[in-house]
Amino acid sequence: MLSDIEIAQQTKLAPIEQIAQKLGLGQEAIEPYGKYKAKISLTENMQQNMGELILVTSINPTPAGEGKTTVSIGLADGLNQIHKKAVLALREPSLGPVMGLKGGATGGGYSQVLPMEDINLHFTGDIHAITAANNALSALIDNHIHQGNELGIDPQQIIWKRTLDINDRALRHIVVGLGNKAQGVPHEEGFDISVASEIMAILCLANDLSDLKERLAKIVIGYTYQNKPVTVHDLQVEGALTLLLKEALKPNLVQTMEQTPAFIHGGPFANIAHGCNSVVATKTALQLGDYVVTEAGFGADLGAEKFLDLKVPSLDKSPNAIVMVATVRALKMHGGLTTEQLTKEDFPALKKRL
Amino acid sequence: MLSDIEIAQQTKLAPIEQIAQKLGLGQEAIEPYGKYKAKISLTENMQQNMGELILVTSINPTPAGEGKTTVSIGLADGLNQIHKKAVLALREPSLGPVMGLKGGATGGGYSQVLPMEDINLHFTGDIHAITAANNALSALIDNHIHQGNELGIDPQQIIWKRTLDINDRALRHIVVGLGNKAQGVPHEEGFDISVASEIMAILCLANDLSDLKERLAKIVIGYTYQNKPVTVHDLQVEGALTLLLKEALKPNLVQTMEQTPAFIHGGPFANIAHGCNSVVATKTALQLGDYVVTEAGFGADLGAEKFLDLKVPSLDKSPNAIVMVATVRALKMHGGLTTEQLTKEDFPALKKRL
Amino acid sequence: MLSDIEIAQQTKLAPIEQIAQKLGLGQEAIEPYGKYKAKISLTENMQQNMGELILVTSINPTPAGEGKTTVSIGLADGLNQIHKKAVLALREPSLGPVMGLKGGATGGGYSQVLPMEDINLHFTGDIHAITAANNALSALIDNHIHQGNELGIDPQQIIWKRTLDINDRALRHIVVGLGNKAQGVPHEEGFDISVASEIMAILCLANDLSDLKERLAKIVIGYTYQNKPVTVHDLQVEGALTLLLKEALKPNLVQTMEQTPAFIHGGPFANIAHGCNSVVATKTALQLGDYVVTEAGFGADLGAEKFLDLKVPSLDKSPNAIVMVATVRALKMHGGLTTEQLTKEDFPALKKRL
Amino acid sequence: MLSDIEIAQQTKLAPIEQIAQKLGLGQEAIEPYGKYKAKISLTENMQQNMGELILVTSINPTPAGEGKTTVSIGLADGLNQIHKKAVLALREPSLGPVMGLKGGATGGGYSQVLPMEDINLHFTGDIHAITAANNALSALIDNHIHQGNELGIDPQQIIWKRTLDINDRALRHIVVGLGNKAQGVPHEEGFDISVASEIMAILCLANDLSDLKERLAKIVIGYTYQNKPVTVHDLQVEGALTLLLKEALKPNLVQTMEQTPAFIHGGPFANIAHGCNSVVATKTALQLGDYVVTEAGFGADLGAEKFLDLKVPSLDKSPNAIVMVATVRALKMHGGLTTEQLTKEDFPALKKRL
Repeated sequence: MLSDIEIAQQTKLAPIEQIAQKLGLGQEAIEPYGKYKAKISLTENMQQNMGELILVTSINPTPAGEGKTTVSIGLADGLNQIHKKAVLALREPSLGPVMGLKGGATGGGYSQVLPMEDINLHFTGDIHAITAANNALSALIDNHIHQGNELGIDPQQIIWKRTLDINDRALRHIVVGLGNKAQGVPHEEGFDISVASEIMAILCLANDLSDLKERLAKIVIGYTYQNKPVTVHDLQVEGALTLLLKEALKPNLVQTMEQTPAFIHGGPFANIAHGCNSVVATKTALQLGDYVVTEAGFGADLGAEKFLDLKVPSLDKSPNAIVMVATVRALKMHGGLTTEQLTKEDFPALKKRL
Repeated sequence: MLSDIEIAQQTKLAPIEQIAQKLGLGQEAIEPYGKYKAKISLTENMQQNMGELILVTSINPTPAGEGKTTVSIGLADGLNQIHKKAVLALREPSLGPVMGLKGGATGGGYSQVLPMEDINLHFTGDIHAITAANNALSALIDNHIHQGNELGIDPQQIIWKRTLDINDRALRHIVVGLGNKAQGVPHEEGFDISVASEIMAILCLANDLSDLKERLAKIVIGYTYQNKPVTVHDLQVEGALTLLLKEALKPNLVQTMEQTPAFIHGGPFANIAHGCNSVVATKTALQLGDYVVTEAGFGADLGAEKFLDLKVPSLDKSPNAIVMVATVRALKMHGGLTTEQLTKEDFPALKKRL
Repeated sequence: MLSDIEIAQQTKLAPIEQIAQKLGLGQEAIEPYGKYKAKISLTENMQQNMGELILVTSINPTPAGEGKTTVSIGLADGLNQIHKKAVLALREPSLGPVMGLKGGATGGGYSQVLPMEDINLHFTGDIHAITAANNALSALIDNHIHQGNELGIDPQQIIWKRTLDINDRALRHIVVGLGNKAQGVPHEEGFDISVASEIMAILCLANDLSDLKERLAKIVIGYTYQNKPVTVHDLQVEGALTLLLKEALKPNLVQTMEQTPAFIHGGPFANIAHGCNSVVATKTALQLGDYVVTEAGFGADLGAEKFLDLKVPSLDKSPNAIVMVATVRALKMHGGLTTEQLTKEDFPALKKRL
Repeated sequence: MLSDIEIAQQTKLAPIEQIAQKLGLGQEAIEPYGKYKAKISLTENMQQNMGELILVTSINPTPAGEGKTTVSIGLADGLNQIHKKAVLALREPSLGPVMGLKGGATGGGYSQVLPMEDINLHFTGDIHAITAANNALSALIDNHIHQGNELGIDPQQIIWKRTLDINDRALRHIVVGLGNKAQGVPHEEGFDISVASEIMAILCLANDLSDLKERLAKIVIGYTYQNKPVTVHDLQVEGALTLLLKEALKPNLVQTMEQTPAFIHGGPFANIAHGCNSVVATKTALQLGDYVVTEAGFGADLGAEKFLDLKVPSLDKSPNAIVMVATVRALKMHGGLTTEQLTKEDFPALKKRL
């Protein structure tokens, strides 16, 4: 049996212009990043079409995985095979958890989005831009304090943390600002992984650049010595942050192995944020396709709930159908089997949770 | 008088494919990043042409600037106006020093490389990739120590520092690894700006991917408890780092305001590294153009020396001509005038240093 | 009404030799510390007398205090007034909680042990000696690690903390060992208040110098990288620590306002240790007096329990009588009144908890 | 040959009251600390006698030692043997450098002050009191900042450091105030050895308690955010600090092996302070003896200079004679020999520096 990577490598990709054409997008609407990736220019006068929205979720997650992404890709590919104009709208993977691990978040088997390696590495730089904006904000906060601290920000009550797109244990709890006065005010700090940045969540909920700027302005970065909240707007840097995110807000277009158009854009964690791909990408997909297949992180009880409660209000569109993934392996695990026992047939364990 | 930004904004850019065509490069040879930037695929069977190399340097630098970049751009544009096939090979600016500052390193007036804003922000993601590789190495070092420390690396003798593409004073001297055992081993650390990473210097000296990998393998990251040096190769992660830098090694193509092809690639600081653009870009330019105009950081005594001593051996090509920039302003400053006095005519001050 | 300090200051003290004489101790048996304090030389061939032991405890403690110390002092004074040879054996106060506060732990009104100020400040230096021994151990641990770490102590698993005899919030959580290799290995650390040192608890349970040395040897100071416990004996420093505590182990003799002999020696906190004065002092008092009045920290449920379970086995003597202090104020508070309401008569509140 | 300790142990000491009597001091004037140490009550109406002052200094110090203390002790003992009423006034040793080392600062051979072990360990608690006062001040500074920081003290400009009476490398450079807001404001800090505390220097220069209080009040503990100095007086804690030092200011009386009275009191380091014993002890000695032998730290170029420039003005008495110690060993070392070569006769080396 071929591995995911082998399958991916023997697949012939269509030039991204050709994929865009399937969606009715001409050269002027896309900004290629290499031959097989593109960002879509956001234009307001897009056709006022609105496709059907299909949400893929699953039963409780298990270590064996639940197959949401492969089902989503397969569903979209299938719809296209029966000549329905289907488009995918999925999350983009973080570099951090990917490094050294199996296969990222680009599906598997014959249900993959491609080019896998690019998507799993720097892709179109969105997460790098989010990291840059996140850390620019941290530097601006510390610099504000260093330059007289007009707002009276309490260094011990800064809640805005720095980020890196990597799982770096040594940075989780640190002390910054050591050395001398020129190097800022000492305080405890920690780095989160970039996809856990509030900026990632905001970028995925924003409808356009001006909405993004408004949302950034409202971020509470900490509290004053009088315990009053301090926002990005108080620091007057929402414009600078928006500038850094200008390109990152544009949805990324790639393709499945069957050349189904796929938007891979935005990836906030479902545990600390809402866990869905961007509103901008889903909305663009809905304007360009008749069926949009999207997914929500984790199981239905967490991820689908967050999709309905947090993303739908900003998207202004509810799912027309919800697909619940319940793999035999996951059901058997819920039936009490260990990961090692999953490869054997076991109807009683399977039945137990049906 | 129009500002640099106004001049840039009213300039009509040619599609990057058209610029590539001037160099004899077809669609297959370029990977567009949006409409006006592209990376050039490195191919060994490029034509064996070798252009003339013109190095632009200057007298000692002054606060008023010395005009190396504008002279370089003007010189290349001028050569093209007299129908010589000239190409630029310049450094790419760091996001860090740019934020909040005047104009980056893209020239000024009617001698600019464009699109200015893109080049000054994320450009094609090279510096983000270098940051990611740099910090992946740091995380791998700390993780190695945490996982039993087979190599016996002394946490107090790690000389490899983390980086961010921003001037962040609070990160210059920090303590990492606090919290508990799961968060690594406590030690002092500091973040440099990304362009000061040794990886930036290496990427700019490497001739191709395998050369890059070899050079990365030789990085000394610190010392053991027995004071023996530890290299990237000892950690066996040169492959992972090379993978992260695969795209970043490809030279970036943009254009001047007069549509002269310009390679903007690599930007190590001249104070702590050799201060030149990449060997890969300069070599590509030499293969595609008849005249390649390049520059070296700081003044002739530091930057040009480093160019000749460090870059030339790797490039395997010496300059055919060296242009020494000595602006009237700089000469007047060396003659004793202050920045404020430079706008007034002052022949005695000028004469003093001629 | 006179304050405690005014009452103390107008009291005429007897020379400490005179107090010692009441216990049948000659000049050779005591080591004076100024005119009104003395340490008692520990001699094995003391008379084999064994007095009656009276333990004073109380109902649950309240912010208004419960009067254990004043009852103890009054009881001993009263026994002496009816010509019973009674001796006190009480805890010595920590300098830390005393500074800036009302009256230390030397009683109040006409039930005080004196000289109050001396007892509340440095007294005979016992707590300073414990602090010195505690911190010498910390320095020896860090130095062992610095000098090659033969025992393989994991700096992140050192559980032995430094101490100071002061409430110093800024030292509760610190990072030590910064600067360079000559300044040790960086790790997180914290200072406790000296009376919370395990050495204080040990000194109060030891029967003599060799017992003290044995107990010190068994202290677990942390764990190796293989999670094996490391003791003081592994570091072979129990002798040095014992030497530092040689004088501190000798019980201190002072007097009440009615010139009743009072041993004030040892003061481990009842919340983190057993909360009683030293076994050595209680035993000496039992040998010299017919009635020994002692107390246990906090209420009966915590302090008296610890006295019976932890101190009695080492003392080898159970109380002959236990006095339970239940002041009207404390009962009223348990009956629901606030501190402010305590000065008014309130029989219903009082009755509620009787 | 007997070791210093063996010689000390076989010496029979006179009770301290007997030593005091030699100086004309009755029971009421002394406060015994055990049998062989006493503090002298400071009384203003002491006899107005003023003895002759003999300062012992030496040529440049060498690793082999220069013998100032043994010469001082021998000189005083000799004067007493020829029936001159001589008294010693020497520095008291720090616990820190003593631990684990040879013999402290109590002389050697048959020129020792006794009881050696007591003097080298806690002695009469002076250094513990200085440590307590020093660290109480640190805690009061950090607490002032924590409680609203009315004085505007800049935590990064606190120059008052904590101290411990031990050489603890891991405490030289630390970060304090971590954890949460209740644990103060994070800042860099370091522990000095107690004898390097400015309080030690002050205590040794003060003439009496009120002079001590005034000098403590003037200590600069750091600077405000506006770079204005902040003193102990600004914090209004000079009274509390003086209280902690009340007993420590009284001079300590011990004896030589030949029962010559010896004041051992105060011991600031000569490298960072003035390196002499206390003014109070020297003055008391001058009032009670006809000849007072004292010494100054390091060699004549540093220690004697400091004695003359810093101590004499406060003491209001210049030396009547200065003894320069130049041992054969030290001269040979200055003549170029190594420590190993010192035991052999070598006239040329000796001559070289005479």
